[in-house]
Amino acid sequence: MYGSPSATFAFFACSFLLFFNDYISIAKAEDKNTYLSKRRSLLQEEWKITTGGGVVLNADELKVNSILMKWKAAEMSEAAKPKGFFPPAYNFMTVKAKIEESDVFRFIKKMPKGAALHIHDTSMASPHWLIRNVTYRPDCYMCIDKTGQLLFRLTKSQPVSSQCKWDTVNQYRSRSGNSSLFDAYLYGNLTIFTDHPAKAYRSQYEVWHQFGSAFQAVEGLVFNTEIFGAYFEQALTELYADNVQYVETRALLGPVVDLNGAVQTKDWAVTVYNEVQHKFSKQHPAFFGAKSIYITQRSKDLVSMMSDVKEAIRLREKFPDSVVGFDLVGMEDQGPTLEYFLDALLYPSQNGIKLPYFFHAGETDWEGMSVDANILDALLLNTSRIGHGYAIMKHPHIRKLLRERDIAIEVNPISNQVLMLVDDLRNHPAAPLMAEGFPLVISSDDPAMWGSTGISHDFYEAFMGLGGAWANLATLKKLASDSIRYSATGQTEKAALYKLWQKAWDVFIKDMLRQHWP
Amino acid sequence: MYGSPSATFAFFACSFLLFFNDYISIAKAEDKNTYLSKRRSLLQEEWKITTGGGVVLNADELKVNSILMKWKAAEMSEAAKPKGFFPPAYNFMTVKAKIEESDVFRFIKKMPKGAALHIHDTSMASPHWLIRNVTYRPDCYMCIDKTGQLLFRLTKSQPVSSQCKWDTVNQYRSRSGNSSLFDAYLYGNLTIFTDHPAKAYRSQYEVWHQFGSAFQAVEGLVFNTEIFGAYFEQALTELYADNVQYVETRALLGPVVDLNGAVQTKDWAVTVYNEVQHKFSKQHPAFFGAKSIYITQRSKDLVSMMSDVKEAIRLREKFPDSVVGFDLVGMEDQGPTLEYFLDALLYPSQNGIKLPYFFHAGETDWEGMSVDANILDALLLNTSRIGHGYAIMKHPHIRKLLRERDIAIEVNPISNQVLMLVDDLRNHPAAPLMAEGFPLVISSDDPAMWGSTGISHDFYEAFMGLGGAWANLATLKKLASDSIRYSATGQTEKAALYKLWQKAWDVFIKDMLRQHWP
Repeated sequence: MYGSPSATFAFFACSFLLFFNDYISIAKAEDKNTYLSKRRSLLQEEWKITTGGGVVLNADELKVNSILMKWKAAEMSEAAKPKGFFPPAYNFMTVKAKIEESDVFRFIKKMPKGAALHIHDTSMASPHWLIRNVTYRPDCYMCIDKTGQLLFRLTKSQPVSSQCKWDTVNQYRSRSGNSSLFDAYLYGNLTIFTDHPAKAYRSQYEVWHQFGSAFQAVEGLVFNTEIFGAYFEQALTELYADNVQYVETRALLGPVVDLNGAVQTKDWAVTVYNEVQHKFSKQHPAFFGAKSIYITQRSKDLVSMMSDVKEAIRLREKFPDSVVGFDLVGMEDQGPTLEYFLDALLYPSQNGIKLPYFFHAGETDWEGMSVDANILDALLLNTSRIGHGYAIMKHPHIRKLLRERDIAIEVNPISNQVLMLVDDLRNHPAAPLMAEGFPLVISSDDPAMWGSTGISHDFYEAFMGLGGAWANLATLKKLASDSIRYSATGQTEKAALYKLWQKAWDVFIKDMLRQHWP
Repeated sequence: MYGSPSATFAFFACSFLLFFNDYISIAKAEDKNTYLSKRRSLLQEEWKITTGGGVVLNADELKVNSILMKWKAAEMSEAAKPKGFFPPAYNFMTVKAKIEESDVFRFIKKMPKGAALHIHDTSMASPHWLIRNVTYRPDCYMCIDKTGQLLFRLTKSQPVSSQCKWDTVNQYRSRSGNSSLFDAYLYGNLTIFTDHPAKAYRSQYEVWHQFGSAFQAVEGLVFNTEIFGAYFEQALTELYADNVQYVETRALLGPVVDLNGAVQTKDWAVTVYNEVQHKFSKQHPAFFGAKSIYITQRSKDLVSMMSDVKEAIRLREKFPDSVVGFDLVGMEDQGPTLEYFLDALLYPSQNGIKLPYFFHAGETDWEGMSVDANILDALLLNTSRIGHGYAIMKHPHIRKLLRERDIAIEVNPISNQVLMLVDDLRNHPAAPLMAEGFPLVISSDDPAMWGSTGISHDFYEAFMGLGGAWANLATLKKLASDSIRYSATGQTEKAALYKLWQKAWDVFIKDMLRQHWP
């Protein structure tokens, strides 16, 4: 690029390969032709193995691809100029608005993306919805403890504590004298969002601290019988608006309390999720539904973990259609490791019980330290998928075995960036994973925590930042269809989900053609 | 790590593997033992394929390894704490002093590292040497042009120009009123060094601009018959002090002028290099010598490139023992690409002439754009090694072919970081390359440009940041011996170089044992 003949913006491998050469003919023609023919083969070989390299686009899709790639080429060649600006190279929280101006982003937003397979149930719906619909309730109380942590509670009677002064949120808001500033303050505490992440968070520990703090605040609002179902419905509404057809949530399942403080069972939470998703799918036939992966915090001892594993087994047996497996959450670097919980995690297989695992593993930069072996234990414990797997490129042997077993990595590019594993997403390990066509799905982890919704922003980052200039509509189609392939749906369900997505895809292609084909 | 039983700092694969487990025995012993045995095998399998995994350390080396790994474990476990600080995660220019306090660094500094195979001849010796020994000369002139570019010239008579006011550096210095501040100002202009790189350089283009500007300034001082040989001798002195045994420089070979402005031939420059290195090796029998890879700027047209290729052929034929090949330099993203120069680069092979290539290729984050194909053309043009190859992980097919042909990547971690391809070096592609034992050597590219000397800082970054916690003395030994293996030395020379390095290595091991073994 940048002004030299061969260096104009070039996708050197797409589904439509162009190899126009107009060199001054100094080289002997036959040698050069042999060279160029070898070069073409290599490029085709490279493209063939990437994510989407095996997808054959039909005539309409090829047209839509050419529309998409025109936009992409324009955006990337502009970005690659000396004073250019490439959003995936910068912290998402600072470039969200810029991304949303992009034609490529708008295309992706409308595109049926299949399934969101790695998304946490208490960070799916917009905090603005919580602020508007929960914090203005007369029974919504808050306090700020000595560490500065915001706590919320919905209750019939004023909570009392010697540690923390409880008032209704409305009282706090009214005392503040400025509702909109106060609500912005709430938003800041319900998320990790900031315009200046580099200043706000100087280490992974600092951003994880705020991350944990925001979850604690959100859960005070969500884990109440009055809100729990409505929040989930709002989450499904946002995913549906983002053109996602199906979701598997990482679900804490409470503890949910009622307005009298009575604690509900996890069974209650699962039942509410089921009712909400059934109703939602009925109202929106283009939405397929939702299932839960039961999760627990990793920061506990082995005995508690054993209880959690048994609880997961019980829930899965009681709700075989909606609780599909088990996972551990929390900052992996802080431990403990999967190996530490081995006795608990081996319990199901040792007792002939099937409990699918969907382990977070390898969400770390610390190669060779104990945390880094989680990815190995996830493999040995027969995980169904791997959450993040950020460390996978540093484990070629494990990677080979995972691939042989067709175990997909759940890639959450924005999460890894804002939680400070990587700055420029072009250095994210999913770039080489996509280049070698490793099984993977794109998801958003905790979109509400950093001002995202659904999975479109993450798809945009993957398409522009991880897939390189040559990633095209075939890549996107593969990512969407693989999200169905690697979902924890039964055979019949999977076929139905695939059909539903394909229908939405075909409509999308027709719409794009109608709107953008000359 | 961080306080849980299994999570204490652990190198999970070293040459001495420890698998102590003291779990509460809930799991059935036989199943768990099977699991742990599989786990051990996997860890061993992973270690075996890493860089150094195949090296068998002798008894003395194992002792030295345990000394080294005690230091490394202490430094890494400290760094991994919530308020810890891990130098490879930060721009080298901001952590150089911190690195130099490290026991691991001091160990590496003393260790015989073999060959520096990717280092540019005008950025090998300290700019402080240039400032002290050249800029105080009465015949050393400088001017500052309209763009703020510092230019130097050594000449018998005052240079005259309507564009730029030439004075001796001494006049400038004396007018400044503060010699040490003035010399610091010179240092700033002869390097890209700054305490605040994030503020000074907001893009790769900005840092490359200063990089080019600093080279222009340096070359004004070095490319003079009075200085050229002395500068090279100083470069060898610094490499030797850094315990490097042999060097292959990327050499521009001028144009060097004398004090009357008469331009010397490239043959003159090669002859000076040969004289200096022969004399130096004679004075320092533990130093093996130096060879040159003739380089030219890539920012030119095809006809000029053809002349350069022919010049390279001529120089190699005339100096078969010291000019070993040809390469193109300059910001790859700015182009042109290798493909653009195909007619020139095919010329030797088409005419039955052997001209080994040592191409810079893949020094880019722009996957799928035309620049990204350089790595493919380097392969097709039968490059002997690849400079940087930063993009290689995004080209699995090319990587496989390069590996089959045993073509090594010259990794320059600090260069890639300060020139802004990556921030945290744990995200550098050489981490996965080392994990899969891909042939590679560690070098320093342009150490003088960012306040480094020799290759020890880069070895430190590779050992701590790229190799992960498990990289140990076997890793370092492999990196050092591979630098000899992939050098462009003839068979007899290589054996002699290897012998010389082995001797230094054995002395080093004995010294370490004497100093640090209890």
